Amino acid sequence: MKTKNKKKPVILVTNDDGIMAPGIRHLIKLMRTIGDVVVVAPDKPQSGMGHAITIATPLRLERIVIDGKRMEYSCSGTPVDCVKLAVNKILFGKPDLLVSGINHGSNASINLIYSGTMSAAVEGAIENIPSIGFSILDYLFDADFAPADMHILSIARKVLKNGVPERTCLNVNIPMTKKIKGIKICRQAFASWADSYDERKDPHHKKYYWLTGDFVNNDKGKDTDEWALKNGYISIVPVQYDFTAHQAIPQIKNLEE
Amino acid sequence: MKTKNKKKPVILVTNDDGIMAPGIRHLIKLMRTIGDVVVVAPDKPQSGMGHAITIATPLRLERIVIDGKRMEYSCSGTPVDCVKLAVNKILFGKPDLLVSGINHGSNASINLIYSGTMSAAVEGAIENIPSIGFSILDYLFDADFAPADMHILSIARKVLKNGVPERTCLNVNIPMTKKIKGIKICRQAFASWADSYDERKDPHHKKYYWLTGDFVNNDKGKDTDEWALKNGYISIVPVQYDFTAHQAIPQIKNLEE
Repeated sequence: MKTKNKKKPVILVTNDDGIMAPGIRHLIKLMRTIGDVVVVAPDKPQSGMGHAITIATPLRLERIVIDGKRMEYSCSGTPVDCVKLAVNKILFGKPDLLVSGINHGSNASINLIYSGTMSAAVEGAIENIPSIGFSILDYLFDADFAPADMHILSIARKVLKNGVPERTCLNVNIPMTKKIKGIKICRQAFASWADSYDERKDPHHKKYYWLTGDFVNNDKGKDTDEWALKNGYISIVPVQYDFTAHQAIPQIKNLEE
Repeated sequence: MKTKNKKKPVILVTNDDGIMAPGIRHLIKLMRTIGDVVVVAPDKPQSGMGHAITIATPLRLERIVIDGKRMEYSCSGTPVDCVKLAVNKILFGKPDLLVSGINHGSNASINLIYSGTMSAAVEGAIENIPSIGFSILDYLFDADFAPADMHILSIARKVLKNGVPERTCLNVNIPMTKKIKGIKICRQAFASWADSYDERKDPHHKKYYWLTGDFVNNDKGKDTDEWALKNGYISIVPVQYDFTAHQAIPQIKNLEE
């Protein structure tokens, strides 16, 4: 038995909705069927944290016991902090796979850039760990993850076997449907948020603002994540952390002095 | 006079070190020589915030008066929040130019991804505003920004005139030297942080961790920002917010189902 266990891949699970969110609980359950799972996740919701790291304050790691037996780690920092701490202070090395999510809400298109879920996966890529972020297009606490189970496991198994392309991770989004049509490899749609702010007054008559807005997709490409999701497919976008706009370099040569 | 003033470009200035940091004070002074300046910046340091936005708590904007006359806005949120609030609640439209910084510390290479300074510029690009992030390779409060003045103004003037390539912003890093050799257009070097954590115990004997680490650059390319900076040049990298690894799409077609 011991020898058999040793062969199991080590899978690091994190998220941005916090360690007790239904999305991560579901993902942990799935990953335990294919590997030895280590959980290091934020102790509170960290949605919209992007690639933030904690540098001005110290970080805490708390051990928590689940179901009276399994140990997990909750972290006071951001999703990226969780990955860094897991590698440096819990695993003392790299897992075979990093999965982040399942996020409650879309991280397709421009949402990617604000996403703590995806930033954990991108940090994994930076550290050369095969990494996947999973999100479902359902914000609700009782979102139904089950229709995607088979696909999530299939993607995780293939990545464990083949890895991911160099310096990338995968952004996987799941449509909200009981009948998923399949999986499409996509590019990120060029969509954006038309922001607005809900302006209110506190009991002391001082103004405050809540961010709100509408998602606007003017990208009609059928090779985009938005198209796939709208048509009942899971979208997978390979995401890179080289943000250089290589194609734009010749256009700005006139700035050289 | 009124007519003349109307022709001045509107320049939005923000940063991540907070509204009272010397870097932004210097940048404001420079930008006032070429435009009508509107300042909306964080009310406290926001370094390492990446592309974080504030969604779970409300935001505050405070008007503050500088030198007994000019009005500026300090914001309780992240650098990206500052840009969104400036456009939606202060300018009620887009400025002609957005400048972020001058950051105290490098945002070259992989630092870009953690940078609040650069995320403000990237948010500008998403909103189709010509945007530039400026950083100097000097963390000290009394960093000497003056040697770069001429170059900063030259870059800002050229961007006001010609814009930036579509869906990009500029990441400008300034070497710490009295004699800047010139400006190089670069790609982001493939470097990374070898993280470590300083492990301590609080007065109640509970562990806490401070992030620390060493910067490791294995990218020897002479077309990189790290090369330019090491050799006394200002580096400019065009940065995009499409994170799709387009070249990797064919490699993962086997994940389709």
